[in-house]
Amino acid sequence: MTEGGRSRPPVVILVRPQMPENIGAAARAMRNFGLTELRLVRPRERWPNEKAVSMAANAVGVLDDARLFDTLEAAVGDLDRVFATTARERHIVKPILTPRGAAVEARAGLRPGYLFGPERTGLEAEEVAAAQAIVEIPTDPDYASLNLAQAVLVCAYEWRLAGTTRPDRALPTGEHGLASQAELGSLYEHLENELQAGGFFRTAAQKPTMVQNLRAIFSRADLTEQEVRTLRGAVKSLTTRRKIPKGRAD
Amino acid sequence: MTEGGRSRPPVVILVRPQMPENIGAAARAMRNFGLTELRLVRPRERWPNEKAVSMAANAVGVLDDARLFDTLEAAVGDLDRVFATTARERHIVKPILTPRGAAVEARAGLRPGYLFGPERTGLEAEEVAAAQAIVEIPTDPDYASLNLAQAVLVCAYEWRLAGTTRPDRALPTGEHGLASQAELGSLYEHLENELQAGGFFRTAAQKPTMVQNLRAIFSRADLTEQEVRTLRGAVKSLTTRRKIPKGRAD
Repeated sequence: MTEGGRSRPPVVILVRPQMPENIGAAARAMRNFGLTELRLVRPRERWPNEKAVSMAANAVGVLDDARLFDTLEAAVGDLDRVFATTARERHIVKPILTPRGAAVEARAGLRPGYLFGPERTGLEAEEVAAAQAIVEIPTDPDYASLNLAQAVLVCAYEWRLAGTTRPDRALPTGEHGLASQAELGSLYEHLENELQAGGFFRTAAQKPTMVQNLRAIFSRADLTEQEVRTLRGAVKSLTTRRKIPKGRAD
Repeated sequence: MTEGGRSRPPVVILVRPQMPENIGAAARAMRNFGLTELRLVRPRERWPNEKAVSMAANAVGVLDDARLFDTLEAAVGDLDRVFATTARERHIVKPILTPRGAAVEARAGLRPGYLFGPERTGLEAEEVAAAQAIVEIPTDPDYASLNLAQAVLVCAYEWRLAGTTRPDRALPTGEHGLASQAELGSLYEHLENELQAGGFFRTAAQKPTMVQNLRAIFSRADLTEQEVRTLRGAVKSLTTRRKIPKGRAD
């Protein structure tokens, strides 16, 4: 296993693709996620093909650089890890990966590649045999037929995601930053004092639980400093118009 | 947070979609991953639209059931979690999720929905404001413009993957199962005895390391019982034709 940083983006190998439009759409999907190296093994239609160009949007560079091969063997010769995408059950003892699992393993190699079969039939058994592992995209069993370019897209997306350090959830707070616990405490105190004055806490016994529940609401919101100021202003604004306290709990 | 099992598949809400073809392709992408509920907020072209049908393949049922809305507010009214997909930076303090993070949170809700903006401009700031969180698909910054249906595909794929129990790597071994350590030990012993007889181990001192390295090769292959038998047959076959041992290490 090598460092992910040295791994090159996967090569996409389309085996006997039937529709040039799908080659173009695959090139676009590749480019969206930073893949640029496309190889074609015996495409059905002539190559280059303007129908591919029409579907590639701004990814025509990927098509221009695409390499043609007569055999799958030649197309994968320089690759160190080859993944075969297939929807069909294979009677062969070979690891089956999710696209996510394949992305992790692709990044562990130096020169990974993904095989995609013809639109109608998929890869033949002997073509799958050329790969170290099988990738199965978890589609709905009742509607499993994924378009060629969509299969490329899912694999390319997973490869890119596997290389990001981005957290699955982030909260960008701009220049202000999250409020400190002290700032939150001041907001809570301000709000609770005004609620106390307004008779919100029916009884002294109920108050601690009501306070906890209120604080939980604001705590979940991950308030910024600026938002704490905004809320304090809002409390002040609400209480300024208060004429006569309606009652007191204590 | 509710149990994932009770969560319904996300509703896909296309806000002011421009191209009916993209609506059809989005329906197909949805259907591939088990999503069926499509809502359209003020599509640019008339609806229903045969251009959408032509791109939906066998997912025309999703189009037939699609609901039209005049406002985004009405389209999301019954949903408990709404995610806005956008590629643009927003000056708003709102969680930013990867498609993976969104899928996990979607499954924690009962009635999740994803918003997708118009092809050319994306969602407006006030439309993003209608969502609890933003979803950013990690595209290549130099080529970030993802097709509408492709954005739907990535979100739908992640939602489905988040609900599978499938491991990222599995090895289906059929009826035979993996070989036991004892079976592997017999194979190793057989092989090493024959190698010893053939003079493969140059010196007694080198033998332990060479044995370890050989065993590591077969160990990594996760052999099945059947494969162990095959390899033992192969060793036997190789040694049957051996005429004269060429040398001995000990």
